[in-house]
Amino acid sequence: MRVLGIDPGYAIVGWGVVDYAGNRFAPVDFGAVCTPAGMAFEQRLAQVYDGVRQIIARTQPEALAIEKLFYQHNQTTVIGVAEARGVVLLAAAQAGLPIYEYTPMQVKQAVTGYGKAVKKQVQEMTRLLLHLQAVPKPDDTADALAMAITHCHTSGNRLDRLTPRQIGPI
Amino acid sequence: MRVLGIDPGYAIVGWGVVDYAGNRFAPVDFGAVCTPAGMAFEQRLAQVYDGVRQIIARTQPEALAIEKLFYQHNQTTVIGVAEARGVVLLAAAQAGLPIYEYTPMQVKQAVTGYGKAVKKQVQEMTRLLLHLQAVPKPDDTADALAMAITHCHTSGNRLDRLTPRQIGPI
Repeated sequence: MRVLGIDPGYAIVGWGVVDYAGNRFAPVDFGAVCTPAGMAFEQRLAQVYDGVRQIIARTQPEALAIEKLFYQHNQTTVIGVAEARGVVLLAAAQAGLPIYEYTPMQVKQAVTGYGKAVKKQVQEMTRLLLHLQAVPKPDDTADALAMAITHCHTSGNRLDRLTPRQIGPI
Repeated sequence: MRVLGIDPGYAIVGWGVVDYAGNRFAPVDFGAVCTPAGMAFEQRLAQVYDGVRQIIARTQPEALAIEKLFYQHNQTTVIGVAEARGVVLLAAAQAGLPIYEYTPMQVKQAVTGYGKAVKKQVQEMTRLLLHLQAVPKPDDTADALAMAITHCHTSGNRLDRLTPRQIGPI
């Protein structure tokens, strides 16, 4: 199973693609789509969209795992992050990828076995599981890889596909 | 000047295109992109995106006017609405349209001359300015036309293009 994990944003979109077979992980590729702060916001969205489309086309994942966004997130940026998340979801939909979303607690639980693990523990476990020399930078990339691992570890539970109800009542 | 006004959403996207010349308005076309409640959310985003792209291609507006989204909006739907707004901004950016955003109070002020006008007054004034027999339905369409009128009435003020700072701090 090949999974694309994404940590959405409009300044930095962390992404990571992992293969999972026989209970073992292998990193395929990972990085971050970064948009300049001085760029018009809609151009940043276009850059995020183009970047994610290219990643999907190049790595051919079978599913997208993405962080669930809550109203309680950082109030000053949540609207912009949600707008960027929208274009990521669009790119995945156009590529026919099934989309799964996970909360930060689900990621901690799946990666470290402990739902209240601290960020460093999640990053170190991500590094170990992927046999990497160092924790990938920026943090957004490490978070995205952890998101992909989460999906591999939990997809046996047959989580529901993303539905409107999971994002918010209609 | 030809302006596309949009009232963003993931269930109903109201849209209206108006021409403005010599202080007179003429409706070009208007309607709503509606997505079924039972459809997967990412497919709804794709339908919104495709719909807006088609409207832009068909009507060839020179600018997009869209409602400014606040964190204070309906808490249960604001994330989904922002995600849909993201794909609308993407479609406009890809078409090279400059994007302008207005608050509900700016719309009321621009359309009726009174920033605390009630919805009915805004709708009736929109109908009169566009020489329509009846207020367009659904409300989202009427709101979108009011948004387009707002841009025509206030663009002389040379409002700033949408920037990240207007959406939220970087």
